Amino acid sequence: MQRKYLAKIFVTLRPSVLDPAGVAVQTSLRQMGHETVEQVRIGKYIELTTIAPDEAKARQDLNDMCEQMLANTVIENYRFDLIEVESQTGVF
Amino acid sequence: MQRKYLAKIFVTLRPSVLDPAGVAVQTSLRQMGHETVEQVRIGKYIELTTIAPDEAKARQDLNDMCEQMLANTVIENYRFDLIEVESQTGVF
Repeated sequence: MQRKYLAKIFVTLRPSVLDPAGVAVQTSLRQMGHETVEQVRIGKYIELTTIAPDEAKARQDLNDMCEQMLANTVIENYRFDLIEVESQTGVF
Repeated sequence: MQRKYLAKIFVTLRPSVLDPAGVAVQTSLRQMGHETVEQVRIGKYIELTTIAPDEAKARQDLNDMCEQMLANTVIENYRFDLIEVESQTGVF
Protein backbone atom coordinates (compact mmCIF):
# COMPACT_ATOMS: atom_id res chain seq x y z
CA MET A 1 0.00 0.00 0.00
CA GLN A 2 1.19 3.50 -0.81
CA ARG A 3 1.08 6.12 1.93
CA LYS A 4 1.20 9.89 1.67
CA TYR A 5 3.67 11.93 3.70
CA LEU A 6 3.93 15.66 4.37
CA ALA A 7 7.53 16.83 4.79
CA LYS A 8 8.36 20.08 6.60
CA ILE A 9 11.89 20.93 5.49
CA PHE A 10 14.19 23.53 7.07
CA VAL A 11 17.18 24.70 5.04
CA THR A 12 19.51 26.89 7.11
CA LEU A 13 22.94 28.40 6.54
CA ARG A 14 25.85 26.62 8.16
CA PRO A 15 27.05 28.50 11.25
CA SER A 16 30.32 29.53 9.56
CA VAL A 17 28.54 31.16 6.59
CA LEU A 18 27.78 34.89 6.70
CA ASP A 19 24.17 35.99 6.16
CA PRO A 20 24.11 39.52 4.71
CA ALA A 21 20.32 39.39 4.26
CA GLY A 22 19.91 38.55 7.96
CA VAL A 23 22.20 41.43 8.94
CA ALA A 24 20.22 43.81 6.70
CA VAL A 25 16.94 42.74 8.34
CA GLN A 26 18.49 43.10 11.81
CA THR A 27 19.68 46.64 10.99
CA SER A 28 16.28 47.63 9.57
CA LEU A 29 14.37 46.21 12.53
CA ARG A 30 16.56 48.23 14.91
CA GLN A 31 16.08 51.39 12.86
CA MET A 32 12.31 50.83 13.02
CA GLY A 33 12.42 50.89 16.81
CA HIS A 34 13.09 47.23 17.63
CA GLU A 35 16.43 47.93 19.34
CA THR A 36 16.11 44.77 21.43
CA VAL A 37 16.75 42.54 18.41
CA GLU A 38 20.12 40.80 18.57
CA GLN A 39 20.89 38.26 15.83
CA VAL A 40 18.79 37.48 12.74
CA ARG A 41 19.37 34.66 10.27
CA ILE A 42 17.19 33.75 7.31
CA GLY A 43 16.62 30.28 5.93
CA LYS A 44 14.09 28.46 3.78
CA TYR A 45 11.02 26.52 4.86
CA ILE A 46 9.68 24.06 2.29
CA GLU A 47 6.59 21.88 2.54
CA LEU A 48 6.09 19.03 0.12
CA THR A 49 3.93 15.95 -0.16
CA THR A 50 5.21 12.66 -1.49
CA ILE A 51 4.04 9.06 -1.82
CA ALA A 52 5.99 6.09 -0.40
CA PRO A 53 5.27 2.57 0.84
CA ASP A 54 6.57 3.36 4.33
CA GLU A 55 8.24 6.05 6.41
CA ALA A 56 11.76 4.66 5.93
CA LYS A 57 11.47 4.96 2.13
CA ALA A 58 9.94 8.43 2.41
CA ARG A 59 12.81 9.50 4.67
CA GLN A 60 15.38 8.13 2.21
CA ASP A 61 13.66 9.92 -0.72
CA LEU A 62 13.62 13.19 1.23
CA ASN A 63 17.32 12.90 2.07
CA ASP A 64 18.07 12.39 -1.63
CA MET A 65 15.95 15.41 -2.63
CA CYS A 66 17.64 17.62 -0.04
CA GLU A 67 21.15 16.47 -0.99
CA GLN A 68 20.54 16.73 -4.76
CA MET A 69 18.51 19.89 -4.98
CA LEU A 70 16.76 21.52 -2.04
CA ALA A 71 19.88 22.36 -0.04
CA ASN A 72 23.34 23.45 -1.14
CA THR A 73 25.19 21.29 1.36
CA VAL A 74 28.45 23.21 0.91
CA ILE A 75 26.92 26.19 2.72
CA GLU A 76 23.58 24.92 4.07
CA ASN A 77 22.26 22.39 6.57
CA TYR A 78 18.87 20.76 6.26
CA ARG A 79 16.48 18.85 8.47
CA PHE A 80 12.90 17.73 8.03
CA ASP A 81 9.89 16.46 9.93
CA LEU A 82 7.81 13.78 8.24
CA ILE A 83 4.12 13.23 8.97
CA GLU A 84 1.86 10.59 7.43
CA VAL A 85 -1.28 12.36 6.17
CA GLU A 86 -4.63 11.59 4.55
CA SER A 87 -4.60 11.41 0.74
CA GLN A 88 -6.47 14.73 0.35
CA THR A 89 -4.07 16.73 2.57
CA GLY A 90 -2.03 19.46 0.85
CA VAL A 91 0.84 21.75 1.76
CA PHE A 92 0.42 25.25 3.29
CA MET B 1 14.87 41.68 34.77
CA GLN B 2 15.40 41.33 31.04
CA ARG B 3 15.07 37.88 29.48
CA LYS B 4 16.34 36.60 26.16
CA TYR B 5 14.03 34.86 23.70
CA LEU B 6 14.72 32.87 20.55
CA ALA B 7 11.96 33.23 17.95
CA LYS B 8 11.51 30.65 15.19
CA ILE B 9 9.42 32.40 12.55
CA PHE B 10 7.65 30.76 9.61
CA VAL B 11 6.54 32.99 6.73
CA THR B 12 4.38 31.11 4.23
CA LEU B 13 2.34 32.12 1.20
CA ARG B 14 -1.40 32.40 1.71
CA PRO B 15 -3.21 29.40 0.23
CA SER B 16 -4.77 31.50 -2.56
CA VAL B 17 -1.37 32.79 -3.77
CA LEU B 18 0.42 30.94 -6.59
CA ASP B 19 4.00 29.76 -5.93
CA PRO B 20 5.88 29.56 -9.26
CA ALA B 21 9.17 28.75 -7.47
CA GLY B 22 7.48 25.81 -5.74
CA VAL B 23 6.09 24.55 -9.04
CA ALA B 24 9.56 24.85 -10.65
CA VAL B 25 11.10 22.80 -7.82
CA GLN B 26 8.33 20.20 -8.08
CA THR B 27 8.90 19.86 -11.84
CA SER B 28 12.68 19.57 -11.40
CA LEU B 29 12.39 16.97 -8.64
CA ARG B 30 10.12 14.86 -10.86
CA GLN B 31 12.52 15.16 -13.79
CA MET B 32 15.35 14.02 -11.51
CA GLY B 33 13.48 10.79 -10.76
CA HIS B 34 11.36 11.79 -7.76
CA GLU B 35 8.06 11.15 -9.56
CA THR B 36 6.28 10.55 -6.26
CA VAL B 37 6.47 14.23 -5.31
CA GLU B 38 3.06 15.92 -5.38
CA GLN B 39 2.88 19.53 -4.18
CA VAL B 40 5.81 21.78 -3.21
CA ARG B 41 5.56 25.23 -1.63
CA ILE B 42 8.44 27.40 -0.49
CA GLY B 43 8.41 29.79 2.43
CA LYS B 44 10.89 31.53 4.70
CA TYR B 45 12.27 30.38 8.05
CA ILE B 46 13.77 33.12 10.20
CA GLU B 47 15.46 32.80 13.56
CA LEU B 48 16.08 35.86 15.70
CA THR B 49 16.97 36.61 19.29
CA THR B 50 15.45 39.51 21.20
CA ILE B 51 15.36 40.85 24.75
CA ALA B 52 12.14 41.49 26.68
CA PRO B 53 10.98 41.62 30.29
CA ASP B 54 8.53 38.75 29.78
CA GLU B 55 7.08 36.44 27.16
CA ALA B 56 3.96 38.56 26.58
CA LYS B 57 6.08 41.59 25.61
CA ALA B 58 8.35 39.44 23.44
CA ARG B 59 5.30 38.02 21.67
CA GLN B 60 3.90 41.51 21.08
CA ASP B 61 7.27 42.72 19.71
CA LEU B 62 7.45 39.74 17.38
CA ASN B 63 3.94 40.34 16.08
CA ASP B 64 4.89 43.95 15.33
CA MET B 65 8.11 42.89 13.54
CA CYS B 66 6.23 40.35 11.41
CA GLU B 67 3.42 42.78 10.53
CA GLN B 68 5.78 45.67 9.77
CA MET B 69 8.60 43.93 7.98
CA LEU B 70 9.17 40.18 8.07
CA ALA B 71 5.94 39.16 6.32
CA ASN B 72 4.00 40.80 3.53
CA THR B 73 0.58 40.15 5.06
CA VAL B 74 -1.24 40.82 1.79
CA ILE B 75 0.14 37.57 0.37
CA GLU B 76 1.83 35.84 3.33
CA ASN B 77 0.89 34.30 6.65
CA TYR B 78 3.27 34.10 9.57
CA ARG B 79 3.57 32.20 12.84
CA PHE B 80 6.33 31.84 15.36
CA ASP B 81 7.49 29.76 18.30
CA LEU B 82 9.12 31.60 21.18
CA ILE B 83 11.61 29.98 23.56
CA GLU B 84 13.31 31.62 26.52
CA VAL B 85 17.05 30.95 26.21
CA GLU B 86 20.31 31.54 28.08
CA SER B 87 22.01 34.87 27.38
CA GLN B 88 24.82 33.25 25.34
CA THR B 89 22.46 31.32 23.00
CA GLY B 90 22.50 32.35 19.32
CA VAL B 91 20.49 31.61 16.21
CA PHE B 92 21.27 28.76 13.75
